[in-house]
Amino acid sequence: MLYGALESGGTKMICAVGDENGTIIDKITIPTTIPDETMPKVVEYFSDKDIKALGIACFGPIDLDKTSDIYGYIVETPKTAWRFYNIVGTIKDALGIPVGFDTDVNGSLLGEVTWGSAKGLTDVVYLTFGTGVGAGILSGGKLVHGMMHPEAGHIKLVPLPGDTFEGKCPFHGTCLEGMTSGPAIEARWGARGEELVERPEVWEMESSYISQGLVNMICILSPQKIILGGGVMHQKSLFPMIREKVLKELNGYLKTKQLDDIDNYIVPAGLNDDQGIMGAIKLAIDSIE
Amino acid sequence: MLYGALESGGTKMICAVGDENGTIIDKITIPTTIPDETMPKVVEYFSDKDIKALGIACFGPIDLDKTSDIYGYIVETPKTAWRFYNIVGTIKDALGIPVGFDTDVNGSLLGEVTWGSAKGLTDVVYLTFGTGVGAGILSGGKLVHGMMHPEAGHIKLVPLPGDTFEGKCPFHGTCLEGMTSGPAIEARWGARGEELVERPEVWEMESSYISQGLVNMICILSPQKIILGGGVMHQKSLFPMIREKVLKELNGYLKTKQLDDIDNYIVPAGLNDDQGIMGAIKLAIDSIE
Repeated sequence: MLYGALESGGTKMICAVGDENGTIIDKITIPTTIPDETMPKVVEYFSDKDIKALGIACFGPIDLDKTSDIYGYIVETPKTAWRFYNIVGTIKDALGIPVGFDTDVNGSLLGEVTWGSAKGLTDVVYLTFGTGVGAGILSGGKLVHGMMHPEAGHIKLVPLPGDTFEGKCPFHGTCLEGMTSGPAIEARWGARGEELVERPEVWEMESSYISQGLVNMICILSPQKIILGGGVMHQKSLFPMIREKVLKELNGYLKTKQLDDIDNYIVPAGLNDDQGIMGAIKLAIDSIE
Repeated sequence: MLYGALESGGTKMICAVGDENGTIIDKITIPTTIPDETMPKVVEYFSDKDIKALGIACFGPIDLDKTSDIYGYIVETPKTAWRFYNIVGTIKDALGIPVGFDTDVNGSLLGEVTWGSAKGLTDVVYLTFGTGVGAGILSGGKLVHGMMHPEAGHIKLVPLPGDTFEGKCPFHGTCLEGMTSGPAIEARWGARGEELVERPEVWEMESSYISQGLVNMICILSPQKIILGGGVMHQKSLFPMIREKVLKELNGYLKTKQLDDIDNYIVPAGLNDDQGIMGAIKLAIDSIE
């Protein structure tokens, strides 16, 4: 049985066909411009693929409330051409098959839980540090939606002593995203992360703020595992620094076997950057079941 | 059908018998001293009540992992006599009936979701501000456990400009509990909350820190409703202040119908301080189903 998978991002659409084991059989990339230009190409790609369902892991914010009049829409995005665009409806009308729908980060998380670093677990946080900071969350075996979906990049952080950087989030300044995203690194240090590899002070600070965010999520969600992905996390030296700082900040308050094994608690994404598209395959599978 | 309910707290044990509608038919209180003294009285109370199951909403931390060797135990509590006490096993051995078990705050939340202010919702946060700050969390219709259970009182807060109070949490200083619990209020202002009713600056500050904590939980969990209980929240003037500050800090970033109706989004507990014991009745019911 074949499934369609669409990882819908702000700059590109990854379209793929896969099977029930998450194996990707075919994949193309289409630039994200405006809906009238991009979506016909997406539909055309899938139209002759004999897929039984399609999953969309989508940039947000999106409406995930199945009782809402605008379920399946991208909502108040800064990408104005896509604001209030009915992406689920467009695909459903064109292809006439079941469509699964969730955030891009919940998609990546679902890929990791189904086939990757968090296989079989029920309570997992997936965080991506890139242009923004996004979180996919699984609790009790279910992707967290609630009134909307997590926007955990926007939790407030405590500035380090003497740090006067005002943060890069237009809404919240020094929130997790405002302090740790790729653009935040660039604004603070005047260069992109990949040009700062040899500057240990950059990663010392970056790991401090990331670990602060993780501690808050650990206290609130009590996850069994935390997966960190996104371009910023290609700086692999961050992992040991983050692990050490998380334990230091928790200060022995929580005693669990997971925290005792911190190297397997805070881990990189495990699917070679295919976690998003593989998660979209799983969204397609789940849309039938 | 009758069910037993035990709200096991650090200073008292509330024992009750109720029915499937959450109606409390009988209730007594036993002081929490040491297990050998307290628990035989608890067992004796329930032994002739013809109950089909018993639910325990218990002070923590506790072990909720059903695959653990110490499932059903109270673990590393500061109340040393109760450290590693097998409360579920004791009740099960003595009464020979199914026993449901969760944290005290998850119990209160379950009461509110089943019969109170959050009836029928699937994603809810219940916070209690008293001797400590505890959080019960429901996500996707399930109580959140994860690797242990939420300890959301310990998320880090940003001190207000000029605030040098070092916080009252022995582990984390200025965490939510360290800044907003009853003992934190007393340490900062030199008097208990009920003696400070006429001091608006106390509640201005208290509401700032509580709202900071709520904003983090909203961003991470996207709850449909937040219920605030505990002794501190008897200061009813806190509610409008907290609501206003939460919206101000979110700064229009999240647009949902729930936040548009903030008076019904952040609400007091709705079961006249019976939410915990009623939640324990529901834990009993669920232990059979």
